[in-house]
Amino acid sequence: MTRESDADTLRAIYEPLANSVRQLIDISIRTEVDASTVAMAKAKIDSAAAELSTAMLPGSFGLRKKDDGQGTAWGNVVIGVRNPVAPPLVIHHGSDGSVWTDFELGAAYEGPAGHAHGGVCALVLDHLLGATAHKPGKPAVTGTLTIRYLRGTPLGRLRAEAHIDRVEGVKIFAVGRIFDASGESTVQAEGIFIHPKGQNS
Amino acid sequence: MTRESDADTLRAIYEPLANSVRQLIDISIRTEVDASTVAMAKAKIDSAAAELSTAMLPGSFGLRKKDDGQGTAWGNVVIGVRNPVAPPLVIHHGSDGSVWTDFELGAAYEGPAGHAHGGVCALVLDHLLGATAHKPGKPAVTGTLTIRYLRGTPLGRLRAEAHIDRVEGVKIFAVGRIFDASGESTVQAEGIFIHPKGQNS
Repeated sequence: MTRESDADTLRAIYEPLANSVRQLIDISIRTEVDASTVAMAKAKIDSAAAELSTAMLPGSFGLRKKDDGQGTAWGNVVIGVRNPVAPPLVIHHGSDGSVWTDFELGAAYEGPAGHAHGGVCALVLDHLLGATAHKPGKPAVTGTLTIRYLRGTPLGRLRAEAHIDRVEGVKIFAVGRIFDASGESTVQAEGIFIHPKGQNS
Repeated sequence: MTRESDADTLRAIYEPLANSVRQLIDISIRTEVDASTVAMAKAKIDSAAAELSTAMLPGSFGLRKKDDGQGTAWGNVVIGVRNPVAPPLVIHHGSDGSVWTDFELGAAYEGPAGHAHGGVCALVLDHLLGATAHKPGKPAVTGTLTIRYLRGTPLGRLRAEAHIDRVEGVKIFAVGRIFDASGESTVQAEGIFIHPKGQNS
């Protein structure tokens, strides 16, 4: 059993690092500085990477031992506060079982010019629809996900919502949408989720 | 008209930067160094970001002027050589219209412990299926994408393949799969793509 304060301490160390790397990702895509400035910055980045790699998990984040005080989801590509690739999404749960999130997608998530990649919209909706089906200690896995693209999703401030439409035996049918800053629905999704037998952690 | 050599020169400047940031992402998720080492590394990362941000595109990469010698796709979240979030995928085209890619997903793409996030598989397949429908100067957009998850996709070396199944009027039906390192199919997808009217660039 890990104390709450251990998790808080660890998060206070590692979350600011992820935030800095996340900002660096955006800047590194958009930078127009000259070759010598790039080379200087790259040297600092490589030096930081070398310092950070002196003690490192052998595998991915989710495979570390679970009693070290860090939440498993901290490495998750959608919601992980230690994963600079994650926007990260903060998912809110309504009392009626619905879920929603307000988030921002920048240059790192681009597909068509100025727009989020359709597959990034699928990534967000897969996770959000899954969140409707998750129960504490009883994770749900995606069986099938169907995404319908209604229009382009502009980069910038976005909102996504999902809820359970119906349950048929072991299948949970969840539906959701992404909305752009003007409130227009850009992508809709339906997912079928199941609780794997014998899995309860 | 931009000379080939301009693109080569620009790529030689910026691609190594993206590679360094990509490596930093992985290390920053997996690092276990102490708070003072994190703080030192973070200071170097913030300093590099400050240097790189002294000249920067106002928006995302795809919105820059197109005659500057850089390929539009360099910022793409799946294939962009300037985007550290992209694995990046290198997509091969067969003479029969099929496409395939061998790629590696590390800690940055994690969902379930040790496995790629289902939405990342959707992102890869959306892009790859779309690549079957693209024609030079005539991009295709995703109408509908259906993903079926057969089993977990372990992080590590993976392969994805796609081809056009059939064309019905303006709709192009593409199908594809992801295979794990042992050759087992983990995820399959069907996508319907269309060439938007009046769009030819």
